[in-house]
Amino acid sequence: MKKVVTIGGGTGSFMLLSGLKKYPIELSAIVSMADDGGSTGVLRDELGVLPPGDVRQCLVALSDSSEMLRELMTYRFTEGGLGGHSFGNLFLSALEKITGSFGTAVQEAAEILDVKGSVIPVTHDDVRLHAKLRNGKTLVGEHAINVSFKLEKIGIEKIFLKPQAKANPIAVKKILTADLVVIGPGNHYCGIIPNLLVAGISDALRKTKAKVVYNCNLVNKQGQTDNFSLDDYVDALHSYIGKPVIDFVTYNTRQPNKKLIDFYRAKESGSIVPFDYQARKKRHYRIVRTDLLSTKIYREKPGDKIGATRAFIRHDADKLAKTLVMLLELGEYENILRDIV
Amino acid sequence: MKKVVTIGGGTGSFMLLSGLKKYPIELSAIVSMADDGGSTGVLRDELGVLPPGDVRQCLVALSDSSEMLRELMTYRFTEGGLGGHSFGNLFLSALEKITGSFGTAVQEAAEILDVKGSVIPVTHDDVRLHAKLRNGKTLVGEHAINVSFKLEKIGIEKIFLKPQAKANPIAVKKILTADLVVIGPGNHYCGIIPNLLVAGISDALRKTKAKVVYNCNLVNKQGQTDNFSLDDYVDALHSYIGKPVIDFVTYNTRQPNKKLIDFYRAKESGSIVPFDYQARKKRHYRIVRTDLLSTKIYREKPGDKIGATRAFIRHDADKLAKTLVMLLELGEYENILRDIV
Repeated sequence: MKKVVTIGGGTGSFMLLSGLKKYPIELSAIVSMADDGGSTGVLRDELGVLPPGDVRQCLVALSDSSEMLRELMTYRFTEGGLGGHSFGNLFLSALEKITGSFGTAVQEAAEILDVKGSVIPVTHDDVRLHAKLRNGKTLVGEHAINVSFKLEKIGIEKIFLKPQAKANPIAVKKILTADLVVIGPGNHYCGIIPNLLVAGISDALRKTKAKVVYNCNLVNKQGQTDNFSLDDYVDALHSYIGKPVIDFVTYNTRQPNKKLIDFYRAKESGSIVPFDYQARKKRHYRIVRTDLLSTKIYREKPGDKIGATRAFIRHDADKLAKTLVMLLELGEYENILRDIV
Repeated sequence: MKKVVTIGGGTGSFMLLSGLKKYPIELSAIVSMADDGGSTGVLRDELGVLPPGDVRQCLVALSDSSEMLRELMTYRFTEGGLGGHSFGNLFLSALEKITGSFGTAVQEAAEILDVKGSVIPVTHDDVRLHAKLRNGKTLVGEHAINVSFKLEKIGIEKIFLKPQAKANPIAVKKILTADLVVIGPGNHYCGIIPNLLVAGISDALRKTKAKVVYNCNLVNKQGQTDNFSLDDYVDALHSYIGKPVIDFVTYNTRQPNKKLIDFYRAKESGSIVPFDYQARKKRHYRIVRTDLLSTKIYREKPGDKIGATRAFIRHDADKLAKTLVMLLELGEYENILRDIV
């Protein structure tokens, strides 16, 4: 079986893995460990555990267990002292407390949830994301960056982890031996880049012989990536990786309907990520332009009072997976496909 | 397979079922629903769920799932806002919230935990235990009765449920079709009798053709059953059931060692339940006198800050189960066994 490695965080990885799991491939999900908001943040602060939220979403996506157990893992309590806590987060944190190790907890959880594939925390170090802004101020913590930044519209000069984190050796090995590495989609600064900041990950991306695909976000995030074009996203990733490694970028060409755009703007005021073929004479990467749009409208879950606002213009898991598997299978025909710009 | 039904509550039923599950019998555990202390009490008050604690213990006892999953179900958080909560209680309460029904939640949990046998809440009604004391005062709630009563040493005139509860029809059916019904061990007023107070349960006990065994507690509970003898316990049960239905009473003859008695007295100041063969000329029930004593010392779990104090002189699960299965298998030889007094 061909080996596919995904790199990302929460909701984006959940969608991606939900689509890819239907294909006969060996799936490994490398997951950001910088989350410190919502239920995850409370558990980090109160119990001293590592952040369970992103790992939980990937475990659920790859779980072959009963519908009920998977629903349970995403259930959020709405009342009392438990209000806002995701049951799945409590599950991982209790396992970490019992086993004394987050890595072991993830393995045990994967067994209980009958997970097909591997879920790999990018690091086992206890880190916090920091953002140095253009005005010299530093924001500490993923949640603070996500929340405060909207208000500040200043721009990020540099994003880094503190303390410096060492890569989970399994993550490095998976990247080096993969056939396909898939980056994103996900929150640019708070979901994707925190993986690249872990020492050893970017190095592995530079060395791997795997085809590397980047799933460009559909919508810019207000206050963080306003006005980013597809090329800007790729440039930004390469600046952290240190070398152009991305072979393909997937880009959605289907325009969301007006109702969806209005609904979205009312919630988050983001704009569709633009792509201008003419903007550059030459690119190291090719762009796969196709319909990747989900036509479902996602509503926030009632209990998610401490969670982040969710995007409502989203990838369709099956359309994206199909495109990625096509890229994986291209092989010798790769150079023939001229309609990939 | 012969059908064995147990009636009880938390720790006592856990022990009993852990022993019985090793035999090829069809096991059904009828479980009290009056608990309102500790983690269970907080969940009842804050989430409006039915009490998960006793059911959880029976599910774990009958679970054939991995050691880790069973350990997880008994794990208690020790820190922060989750401190004192049993993970297994959160598991049942989340399932109740998702499915909208405690009965369905228990069934789903049984499936996830690979439970052999059935765990049957005695009622699905939301009830509170009340105790009318001899001084006219009424205590409301199982926890209040367990805690305050120690201080009051007044004696219970009457114990009742409010509102009056209707039996789970499955519980009634199981009792009526059982070969053996096993009552206790467990907290007399707060674990055993709350089952008998549910309308339909005592009636089923009067009608069933099953052999009925009562496992007498080893130790009296200070402030509640001080100075009760074996016969007093049986009389008390029959007064609630309305007719003598108990065929056999198991009674431990092995004296705990001095260290254990001292340890126990220091924690709870209870005394060993006495049995005097000569005290009565005739009994409707026979007493099985044998070694039923556990020689392990149980320590309270570190996280159990909102739980009740645990008894330290306990039944041995295997010894008790062996005795009960012997009674189940006696059949035609029953009358021959003259050493059962």
